[in-house]
Amino acid sequence: MKRVFEWAIRVYIEDTDFGGVVYYANYLKFFERARTEWLRDLSIGQQSLAGDHGVVFIVTSVAVDYRAPARLDDELRLTVAVERAGRASVEFLQQAWRGETLLASGRVRVGCVDLDDLRPQAIPPEMMEKIRKWV
Amino acid sequence: MKRVFEWAIRVYIEDTDFGGVVYYANYLKFFERARTEWLRDLSIGQQSLAGDHGVVFIVTSVAVDYRAPARLDDELRLTVAVERAGRASVEFLQQAWRGETLLASGRVRVGCVDLDDLRPQAIPPEMMEKIRKWV
Amino acid sequence: MKRVFEWAIRVYIEDTDFGGVVYYANYLKFFERARTEWLRDLSIGQQSLAGDHGVVFIVTSVAVDYRAPARLDDELRLTVAVERAGRASVEFLQQAWRGETLLASGRVRVGCVDLDDLRPQAIPPEMMEKIRKWV
Amino acid sequence: MKRVFEWAIRVYIEDTDFGGVVYYANYLKFFERARTEWLRDLSIGQQSLAGDHGVVFIVTSVAVDYRAPARLDDELRLTVAVERAGRASVEFLQQAWRGETLLASGRVRVGCVDLDDLRPQAIPPEMMEKIRKWV
Repeated sequence: MKRVFEWAIRVYIEDTDFGGVVYYANYLKFFERARTEWLRDLSIGQQSLAGDHGVVFIVTSVAVDYRAPARLDDELRLTVAVERAGRASVEFLQQAWRGETLLASGRVRVGCVDLDDLRPQAIPPEMMEKIRKWV
Repeated sequence: MKRVFEWAIRVYIEDTDFGGVVYYANYLKFFERARTEWLRDLSIGQQSLAGDHGVVFIVTSVAVDYRAPARLDDELRLTVAVERAGRASVEFLQQAWRGETLLASGRVRVGCVDLDDLRPQAIPPEMMEKIRKWV
Repeated sequence: MKRVFEWAIRVYIEDTDFGGVVYYANYLKFFERARTEWLRDLSIGQQSLAGDHGVVFIVTSVAVDYRAPARLDDELRLTVAVERAGRASVEFLQQAWRGETLLASGRVRVGCVDLDDLRPQAIPPEMMEKIRKWV
Repeated sequence: MKRVFEWAIRVYIEDTDFGGVVYYANYLKFFERARTEWLRDLSIGQQSLAGDHGVVFIVTSVAVDYRAPARLDDELRLTVAVERAGRASVEFLQQAWRGETLLASGRVRVGCVDLDDLRPQAIPPEMMEKIRKWV
């Protein structure tokens, strides 16, 4: 059994395109909102990561499959699961659901890098400890 | 005393720009999310407006003063007040606050128009009745 | 006779919303692209402003009237005119046209501020000299 | 030897995030602008596809690797190559370059679907003929 974090998101006009559905690039924003709230839930602040450890998380790859469209006013359920936690990177499985319908499924890989030169850095231990509980 | 609707919004990375603050164009999105939730609170659905009355609301003008920047992870309080309700248009005063600091203040005018030819139409009476309670 | 700078912009799917037209907040982006290209045309780089003078331009107010919608694949003509150049701020009149049809007309006020504390600063003289030729 | 279409894109403030670089989701927009211009170059209009054939192209999956950041004022070179053309879908290899530096590399799969029910449809023959020349 995998631990899954959930976050609700409402679809506004800004999210739609001329096809009347959510513009596909915007799912990356939705996924990130959910990851950010998962971090907040773990009491991991992105700004304290930078201030205390001199590191920052950056997205190094994304892959998304689009299954069904979301529309204006839909309330979406975004899920976050940790697929893998490495020394300097974490891979997430993230999905967008409307009720029991899977709309989009993605894998997002984030890397921990030095704030200044963007070189890979080990994830700070106290953070890794929190993340491990989700693997 | 004016009735004021409030809606909370969190600032995510997608909202920021290279200056480290919320990109100014995004306040128009924040204002719209708050107006949309105000409409939802009034039980006025944008899609039923289109389906039942053949009308849609469009933004006809905006004016925003920027006072102070919002930053990543800020929780903003968005306010919606109705300044004026005309036969075919409504003017809103909308503000973004962080705690007691006013960040941005805007006036947004929306017009009620025919779904097909975009010509001004009277706001449907049952909707006008609800809006009047906010003037 | 006023000097007017022009910049062409194509409408892509990302710019549209579920109404099939350009989402109104995006005109602020279009206006900014045109102002940025006007600055580039004047050989004023935003990054050298920050590096050489410790100042940066920020948008302090916007006001836009929307006249007619733009649609997917439209080629728009964005105009930039300087309405007023003050010691620490510049006011622009900016418009979006499709052929001879005015779609949106806006006033954008930008302020010159200190990079660190965001307090108003005088516009650097060599830049002011270039701007004055446009008033 | 593969045929490659190229399209230049300038990075504006709207494209950046608080990290001072292009926000990663925006590469999907850049890729789409390039694909749209490739279609235009082939004289394939998205609106005529809908009008004449009742079909529309939708993005069904994306996968992007981020290699190096793009910054404000950068001029990027976007490339479009057709990896595979199936009966009802096309797979693109798309990249973003700054000079000789590869910034992002992606695979985008678009499906040809019925305008009304979004079911897969064969790509119209005259369009397929044009696309095949790029495989």
